[in-house]
Amino acid sequence: MKKVAIVMGSKSDVELVKPCMEVLEEFGVPYDVKILSAHRTPDEVAKFAEEAERKYAVIIACAGYSAHLPGVIASKTTLPVLGVPLDTSPLSGFDSLLSIVQMPSGVPVATFTVGKAGSKNAGIFAVQILAVSNPVLRKKLKEFKERMRRKVISS
Amino acid sequence: MKKVAIVMGSKSDVELVKPCMEVLEEFGVPYDVKILSAHRTPDEVAKFAEEAERKYAVIIACAGYSAHLPGVIASKTTLPVLGVPLDTSPLSGFDSLLSIVQMPSGVPVATFTVGKAGSKNAGIFAVQILAVSNPVLRKKLKEFKERMRRKVISS
Amino acid sequence: MKKVAIVMGSKSDVELVKPCMEVLEEFGVPYDVKILSAHRTPDEVAKFAEEAERKYAVIIACAGYSAHLPGVIASKTTLPVLGVPLDTSPLSGFDSLLSIVQMPSGVPVATFTVGKAGSKNAGIFAVQILAVSNPVLRKKLKEFKERMRRKVISS
Amino acid sequence: MKKVAIVMGSKSDVELVKPCMEVLEEFGVPYDVKILSAHRTPDEVAKFAEEAERKYAVIIACAGYSAHLPGVIASKTTLPVLGVPLDTSPLSGFDSLLSIVQMPSGVPVATFTVGKAGSKNAGIFAVQILAVSNPVLRKKLKEFKERMRRKVISS
Amino acid sequence: MKKVAIVMGSKSDVELVKPCMEVLEEFGVPYDVKILSAHRTPDEVAKFAEEAERKYAVIIACAGYSAHLPGVIASKTTLPVLGVPLDTSPLSGFDSLLSIVQMPSGVPVATFTVGKAGSKNAGIFAVQILAVSNPVLRKKLKEFKERMRRKVISS
Amino acid sequence: MKKVAIVMGSKSDVELVKPCMEVLEEFGVPYDVKILSAHRTPDEVAKFAEEAERKYAVIIACAGYSAHLPGVIASKTTLPVLGVPLDTSPLSGFDSLLSIVQMPSGVPVATFTVGKAGSKNAGIFAVQILAVSNPVLRKKLKEFKERMRRKVISS
Amino acid sequence: MKKVAIVMGSKSDVELVKPCMEVLEEFGVPYDVKILSAHRTPDEVAKFAEEAERKYAVIIACAGYSAHLPGVIASKTTLPVLGVPLDTSPLSGFDSLLSIVQMPSGVPVATFTVGKAGSKNAGIFAVQILAVSNPVLRKKLKEFKERMRRKVISS
Amino acid sequence: MKKVAIVMGSKSDVELVKPCMEVLEEFGVPYDVKILSAHRTPDEVAKFAEEAERKYAVIIACAGYSAHLPGVIASKTTLPVLGVPLDTSPLSGFDSLLSIVQMPSGVPVATFTVGKAGSKNAGIFAVQILAVSNPVLRKKLKEFKERMRRKVISS
Repeated sequence: MKKVAIVMGSKSDVELVKPCMEVLEEFGVPYDVKILSAHRTPDEVAKFAEEAERKYAVIIACAGYSAHLPGVIASKTTLPVLGVPLDTSPLSGFDSLLSIVQMPSGVPVATFTVGKAGSKNAGIFAVQILAVSNPVLRKKLKEFKERMRRKVISS
Repeated sequence: MKKVAIVMGSKSDVELVKPCMEVLEEFGVPYDVKILSAHRTPDEVAKFAEEAERKYAVIIACAGYSAHLPGVIASKTTLPVLGVPLDTSPLSGFDSLLSIVQMPSGVPVATFTVGKAGSKNAGIFAVQILAVSNPVLRKKLKEFKERMRRKVISS
Repeated sequence: MKKVAIVMGSKSDVELVKPCMEVLEEFGVPYDVKILSAHRTPDEVAKFAEEAERKYAVIIACAGYSAHLPGVIASKTTLPVLGVPLDTSPLSGFDSLLSIVQMPSGVPVATFTVGKAGSKNAGIFAVQILAVSNPVLRKKLKEFKERMRRKVISS
Repeated sequence: MKKVAIVMGSKSDVELVKPCMEVLEEFGVPYDVKILSAHRTPDEVAKFAEEAERKYAVIIACAGYSAHLPGVIASKTTLPVLGVPLDTSPLSGFDSLLSIVQMPSGVPVATFTVGKAGSKNAGIFAVQILAVSNPVLRKKLKEFKERMRRKVISS
Repeated sequence: MKKVAIVMGSKSDVELVKPCMEVLEEFGVPYDVKILSAHRTPDEVAKFAEEAERKYAVIIACAGYSAHLPGVIASKTTLPVLGVPLDTSPLSGFDSLLSIVQMPSGVPVATFTVGKAGSKNAGIFAVQILAVSNPVLRKKLKEFKERMRRKVISS
Repeated sequence: MKKVAIVMGSKSDVELVKPCMEVLEEFGVPYDVKILSAHRTPDEVAKFAEEAERKYAVIIACAGYSAHLPGVIASKTTLPVLGVPLDTSPLSGFDSLLSIVQMPSGVPVATFTVGKAGSKNAGIFAVQILAVSNPVLRKKLKEFKERMRRKVISS
Repeated sequence: MKKVAIVMGSKSDVELVKPCMEVLEEFGVPYDVKILSAHRTPDEVAKFAEEAERKYAVIIACAGYSAHLPGVIASKTTLPVLGVPLDTSPLSGFDSLLSIVQMPSGVPVATFTVGKAGSKNAGIFAVQILAVSNPVLRKKLKEFKERMRRKVISS
Repeated sequence: MKKVAIVMGSKSDVELVKPCMEVLEEFGVPYDVKILSAHRTPDEVAKFAEEAERKYAVIIACAGYSAHLPGVIASKTTLPVLGVPLDTSPLSGFDSLLSIVQMPSGVPVATFTVGKAGSKNAGIFAVQILAVSNPVLRKKLKEFKERMRRKVISS
């Protein structure tokens, strides 16, 4: 199975990105974590995006401020790119949300909730993508959904 | 190949949803169009979402105002659900954007640009999901990207 | 007297929902509290909403993020549904406010102040609804209003 | 049956308020329309609110800009007050929405969608309130919901 | 000299209102402080506003949430009413700012900065109004401006 | 009687400023109109503000975009400065509103509604300031208020 | 003299970008216009940015939606990059403004007014940068400022 | 080499402005720090701006609330003025961002990220401006960019 790549713009984002890693582990989906900045390491990002197809099936990119990372990766690959806006600036994530979601026609980035909830949801969505051709993951997703349901009911 | 389902909340949204259909046709990806409202036809939406797995690989849901349609579908399926916020209310789509993207932890909706650009991008993203296990679509996506590139350069 | 149902999306919301319970107790209006998530327990929500009419006269639904709970309930009942946007996401409740209030034409949700103030106000409003056909509650509401008045004046 | 009062701040709002009147007519619920401004006719508003209980069961107040009308009425009555934010200022209704919905603790205003959709929804909600003690209206609401459902399905 | 009236919606606002009192004291302008709520004590507010002309030259009203207090007072007097939006709700004062400033045509409220800075500025502005016909206050305002200038320069 | 000065940033703003002139004429308050730009004619603005006290009692400044005009004038005079945010930029007046109202502690600008309604309201407020020491204007304001009232009632 | 590069994301932006070209012509500053999209032609943008230093002194990049173009160029050059947010999406330019201005620490983009005004201002600012070491342009800038002043005064 | 001027509106802003000073020191660019308020010391600001050309090549102005400082300076000089919006008011910097960036046509202010990140970025941008005619600074900027890159890669 091809892996999921999780990319974040700065090491300091790791706390917000953790729920994404945890959920992939919970599903047994292999992943790599990269720290790559669209603005500070553009060549590394470009190289990563160009070669991503060989190793990865899905890319998750998390970033704050004017969060260009997911869009920049999406411009260099045809893999599905999932973007997570982080609430790290004084504008509470409104900036990163609009920077990620408002991609112009032709180059989509799938955008998720601002902050930790989005980080977890991007992880789950990556599994949902893989499950399109993987019945084992489909079954696990159904069990995950059922566990969530029970947890709410028994609360 | 399983189909893509395009769901919209109201017949009057069709003009904004058209770019999504056109791009799927361009890629030769089969799709069905449904008019289903989370609020006016909740049972039909629930039934559609429950059975979607049999016929569909990906679901695209387009809605304006407090756009619950994508989230409601996502609550009933483990298929990837793509949400397109439509700018049909006096609040220019800020309402539908936040209603779709801010899904709570556990039930992701992949959100795209407000309006027509998002509708097209959701279509492309559906193809990107299918291409994870379909080399023909991968090739077509690369050609599509190349055509876009050329169109900009020659402009 | 039929009861009021208070529904919240997550157990962790209970602190924000408490003022609603307290005000119903102050008025002697019986209520049930349910933890039901539009996204994690859609079938339970649907079942609850369908059967609500038998036991309840009014439903209060409190939720954060893209708060679909009140709208989803409103789609399945003709009872009055009161929605309280909770400020639990990084976007301070702007997301839940717009998700709840911007319901499309045909399926109303009565929306109240973001956070604790809204939770209390939804409780009072539920009493106001019941008082339409209950002179005892009408009298209590007038006394409540008078107590509030005095408290301000004597402050 | 006590009537519904529809109050609007200015004669020029009538086009946006019409869907409210039409839906009440559809349900056979009697209503009066008043043009009363919280800021230009405060005494008339106060008098109206004080005496409303004798003739009315529910009050719907529609206003744009810093829309104080619903809140001012709510301060003088224990009847349920429904507020509809109108998008008549250059700020697209964000101003009237926040002015109406963010009522402080103790004096609720039930708020609906900005603009025409909210105007219709407030009308339906008024019927839902009356239906709490009126089985005929309950039945009509169910038929209305069913008609909406069919209209979507057959579209 | 007629006095300035400072009105606030709740006793809990006093900390934010203090800079207003201090600045009036600094200028030797007499003032009264009232706690009056547009929503909880509408009659007291109306009575206050109607009679204000006899004792007061200017009214300063401070309020949070959907801050109707200044507008409601302005509807009942031809005195200049100054409004200060307080940042006491989860929406950081955006709600009270729009509720106060967006008054419809015909009934002005002079609005100032959200929070403490606005409270002080409303106090200074009240002095500026009085100074229109009071050369002593004009002189004091010039000295105040000069002191501010020096404080910045020497910092 | 000292005059009111109406200053606008650009000749193209005149349509939005007209209601201000008309209302001053209605009250028989003499006024001058100036086209002065905080950014294009800073020296003229400074000179105007410094000398304003000799001829004017109140200054009304109308501006769009990052509307510095009222604040810049307020920095150079102790006269009351009224600011009107104009909705002339693509951001609908949110920019000019925040630029005008959010003055830092020490230098107040009284801010009014965005656009035409604010322009008229600033005119009325200027009269209210003059009326503090002018019983004839006070009487006219009461008649104006009464006319407004009647116009609403008879509508 | 090195030239100014004006880059826009799409040919359809040319109307909004024109004021930038006109102002450079007015100052006799040579410029090139490029249509390059951060998302559709990432390699061309990277190549352009890498080599820009040889021909250009300043780069102006204009873009709408999640406007990554200026930031992407800034990541690959140490030349000053000026960003102009265009109001081409349904969100009126709030999206492009936040995408451009909120650059993370380390990679600045100088941001200007949303829309046409920003396009002209970026052109003037480019001249101001060149004037730092060019007394002829300094003189022209002073004349330009004086012409603006006169135009306002004589209006 | 002409110096950079860093101006801030209040001594209390110094913590947010520090990254700007540090980065200029890192590049060995001489700078002066001034505390000057557009509203409290308008004459000092005007004098500073008029004479700035003699000593300075670039001006950086940092301010919160309705941040007029950069625009007011820009109105009096043809030097490049860089504006940094500070998040010191209850509105999180949205107010200062719009006040600084939305300058009307003709008088540009180059605007940077809200808060500390913007303060550092304005410093770097000042160096980029100086580097247009200074190969030593150009080389230092490239080394700075390379150091940033390495720091991310090795993290």
